Amino acid sequence: MSTTVIQHVLSRLYKLGMKDIFGVAGDYAFPIEDAICSDKNMRWIGCCNELNAAYAADGYARIHGVAALSTTFGVGELSAINGVAGSYAEYLPVFHLVGMPMTGVQEAHRLVHHTLGNGEFDLFYNLAAPMVCARAIMTPENCVAETERLIATALSERRPVYMGFPSDYANTPIIDGISPSKTHAASPKSDPDVLKAAVAAIVEMVSASKMVCILPGVLVSRRGLADKTKAVVDASNLPFATMFMDKCVIDEAHPNYIGMYDGKLMDKEVCTFIESCDCVLGIGAMMTDFNSGGFTAQIDRSKSVSIMQHSVRVGSAFYNGIDMEDVLITLAKSIPRKNVTAPRAKDLGEPVGNPDGKITSSYMYPRWQQMLKPNDILITETGASGMGLGFVKMPKGATFQNQTLWGSIGWATPAAFGAAIAAPERRTILVTGEGAHQMTAQDVSSFHRFGLKPIIFVVNNDGYLIERMLCENPDMYYNDLAKWNYAKLPAALGCQDWFTARVATCGELDEAIQAAESCGTGAYIEVVTDKYDAPPLLHKIHDIRKSFYSV
Amino acid sequence: MSTTVIQHVLSRLYKLGMKDIFGVAGDYAFPIEDAICSDKNMRWIGCCNELNAAYAADGYARIHGVAALSTTFGVGELSAINGVAGSYAEYLPVFHLVGMPMTGVQEAHRLVHHTLGNGEFDLFYNLAAPMVCARAIMTPENCVAETERLIATALSERRPVYMGFPSDYANTPIIDGISPSKTHAASPKSDPDVLKAAVAAIVEMVSASKMVCILPGVLVSRRGLADKTKAVVDASNLPFATMFMDKCVIDEAHPNYIGMYDGKLMDKEVCTFIESCDCVLGIGAMMTDFNSGGFTAQIDRSKSVSIMQHSVRVGSAFYNGIDMEDVLITLAKSIPRKNVTAPRAKDLGEPVGNPDGKITSSYMYPRWQQMLKPNDILITETGASGMGLGFVKMPKGATFQNQTLWGSIGWATPAAFGAAIAAPERRTILVTGEGAHQMTAQDVSSFHRFGLKPIIFVVNNDGYLIERMLCENPDMYYNDLAKWNYAKLPAALGCQDWFTARVATCGELDEAIQAAESCGTGAYIEVVTDKYDAPPLLHKIHDIRKSFYSV
Repeated sequence: MSTTVIQHVLSRLYKLGMKDIFGVAGDYAFPIEDAICSDKNMRWIGCCNELNAAYAADGYARIHGVAALSTTFGVGELSAINGVAGSYAEYLPVFHLVGMPMTGVQEAHRLVHHTLGNGEFDLFYNLAAPMVCARAIMTPENCVAETERLIATALSERRPVYMGFPSDYANTPIIDGISPSKTHAASPKSDPDVLKAAVAAIVEMVSASKMVCILPGVLVSRRGLADKTKAVVDASNLPFATMFMDKCVIDEAHPNYIGMYDGKLMDKEVCTFIESCDCVLGIGAMMTDFNSGGFTAQIDRSKSVSIMQHSVRVGSAFYNGIDMEDVLITLAKSIPRKNVTAPRAKDLGEPVGNPDGKITSSYMYPRWQQMLKPNDILITETGASGMGLGFVKMPKGATFQNQTLWGSIGWATPAAFGAAIAAPERRTILVTGEGAHQMTAQDVSSFHRFGLKPIIFVVNNDGYLIERMLCENPDMYYNDLAKWNYAKLPAALGCQDWFTARVATCGELDEAIQAAESCGTGAYIEVVTDKYDAPPLLHKIHDIRKSFYSV
Repeated sequence: MSTTVIQHVLSRLYKLGMKDIFGVAGDYAFPIEDAICSDKNMRWIGCCNELNAAYAADGYARIHGVAALSTTFGVGELSAINGVAGSYAEYLPVFHLVGMPMTGVQEAHRLVHHTLGNGEFDLFYNLAAPMVCARAIMTPENCVAETERLIATALSERRPVYMGFPSDYANTPIIDGISPSKTHAASPKSDPDVLKAAVAAIVEMVSASKMVCILPGVLVSRRGLADKTKAVVDASNLPFATMFMDKCVIDEAHPNYIGMYDGKLMDKEVCTFIESCDCVLGIGAMMTDFNSGGFTAQIDRSKSVSIMQHSVRVGSAFYNGIDMEDVLITLAKSIPRKNVTAPRAKDLGEPVGNPDGKITSSYMYPRWQQMLKPNDILITETGASGMGLGFVKMPKGATFQNQTLWGSIGWATPAAFGAAIAAPERRTILVTGEGAHQMTAQDVSSFHRFGLKPIIFVVNNDGYLIERMLCENPDMYYNDLAKWNYAKLPAALGCQDWFTARVATCGELDEAIQAAESCGTGAYIEVVTDKYDAPPLLHKIHDIRKSFYSV
């Protein structure tokens, strides 16, 4: 039997490791969904809505490297677009498969549902352009070549791609005669001369410097180059710190880890050390607002190196057309071994609080740190709780995920679901605030539906705390929320057997954590704190909030 | 005190009747939200997420004529975009106020949160273009003139507009010296000669025809021209039918109402009558797929008239540059009075079912018809239940709302919330399917938060029934859903005092409806039916589903 367009695409995605495809069913996408559900290798992961599905795919890609999402025309893809934009901003290759009306319907400009009623059918395909690194409408003729182009681009750029499938084309056999192997788009190769020059320049600056440190960044993780970056650390013996978005890209259990660098806002010792270095070697790190402590970080450009995806900067000199992987491999062989006196990484210490006392940041963040185990997946929301957890010291093999740049609240709950689908054998721990959780809470049901057992903490501080801390008048009522009975939510959403609790004292939180760790089911804990209890970073950001929003 | 940019815009929106603004708080939008919450005339209606807020604004505009929505940059506006697109497709003027980073941050291309990390700040403003009829970045200099342009365009086109507010500009005083009255954009005026010719041509065709009927459409309602359309009906004594999207644009209690026209799919008598007319006078109606019974409607173009927003078609002749309102006023004065023998509108009759028997379509749709009262607002979801309710006969003054063209499932729950905010003195009845409801269910909490008492029915038929009826293999698991305990949901969402029930027999449904009508609180009823119980229209669509998707 000949292979159809959608079958060909799915078989290629499967070979890349995508056996789970997130989405919401829709009529124009039936051929895609039929093909997925008829494929013994693949699993359709239906989510409650498309934005949640996109967030779930994003979470899956963070753990698994790549992900796939499928939605229907117009309504579905637009609902998902904010999630896909987040994957673009944060370098996650999500393959977005969109079902479109039949070509004949499009050509006739028919007045059909899920259109704006103006006969335009390429509108949403065009809208997607800024949020993807490549896109195509898949046809029997272009299917083999375009699939390879999109795969190569997604893997090289680590960003989403859009594949539109007119319903009739999806089920049409691909045109034979093109050997897939010949059409595989080649990965970009590094220019050997530029590579040599760039690495020599890095080595020269490192050699000439007394105080040197490394700032490994999120692109290391996105490119799957943690081992090769660690090889540079090990070869050079250099200390490394990470910024918020980059937490855990190299194991925090590594002896050379010195802690979190957040400009002038948090650890003074780390800040002073890094900013006094003669050479700061950035590897895939970006100086965004939340990475740089609201732009309080001051690293002299002339004293820094930045190894990025396809380029290297040494001081003011750019070296283009070289791949990060090649740079790291070459650098690990030539970087000199140094002995730099650097701070030692701290942890949050012991929880501070009385069993009968209110839960405060001084208790809960250290308590969460205590519960973390090797290989845990910790998903944290944009907001107060994420800012607290960014400073726990993570165990070996554990990963910390946060949508630091795009910062779309609500992301964490479905992203945790996607991460748990990607790695059901690991513990997935989600910590979210109640305001963010309200945005996407329905997909708590999806954990249960797919047999997953997360540990979920919902911090209830009676409103959007991060907003209160950033705006002029914290009590403005736009920061208030509908009051939910969070602990009753799992049962309403079908998770009847889960352990649930509402805790307001340190002792209750401690007990609930112990119960959650031993219950053998999913766990969902509402953690009640005072309205203005906030972790240190949020207080610091509050203090400098004006400069955060100006230049 | 001088007026700031945001104060000026809010004062103009307030004068148009917008005292409630839907949205979700976000840092770049603080100046907008501060101004709303500080304005004694205005109310911030915080929703659980931005898509829900956009749907709520859409529902509000359906009842109130206009609506406003505010979201933050990037993440917020993209989450809302599908809802705004629906308002565009269905002709609802929603003012979308978007908070943007300060101009200096934009000009410096800073790497800040809620951006794609590429320094582009006009990206989302440009993305909005196809989903709005006009847009502007508001500055102190352009504020007065642009506000008037956007208002005039929104009211004339009945479609959304986008207003972007850089945070610093929002709080800057508007530049004086321009008299707002001079800048008011003029409404388009009809060309008097064209108007005369068009109406004469309509009158000529009507006069020459024996069998004539009217098809009033959704644009009548959107333009607020129900009375002027009714005047044409009354002057001519012509019978009228409506299509799905157009239901209730003229009162179904009117003696000239003959019933629903859905091509060849439903009422044969209505279909035969209309398709045998010598003249079908369409007023603001569109022949979309779901309006035309999947394109089974056959109205001879040469025997039809279409009065649209800014044009009239009589047979093959187009008359452009004339306004619907002027056409209706002129036509009511000159249309001849006719006596046409036409069918009489039917209702669904008595509910059929035993008190102990399962709930079927034969019982529940007639039972819902029985409960409807004058002036009720009935919000129905895209899907099976909406297709059943489209054929109830609505009482005087009652309105039926359905997102027929855009058809984004999940719309109905927040749209009902928006409608209830617009008219708290009327009963809001929401009927949705459980698949659609899962998408946006969190805003059930918003009804309670704002003291509203809707009656909500969630039809639980174990999956996306409309999808099952349209796809190749109805049992494909992409049509399945997480199993929720719907009746427990209101309490989890904070609606503790509501009447809730799960009903599976006709007697239980009957009792629950009676309880809901008398409880004095909000009511939420899960209605359990067989997996494949479907209203007649959905069975008919199932039968012709292939032709629905092809040309």
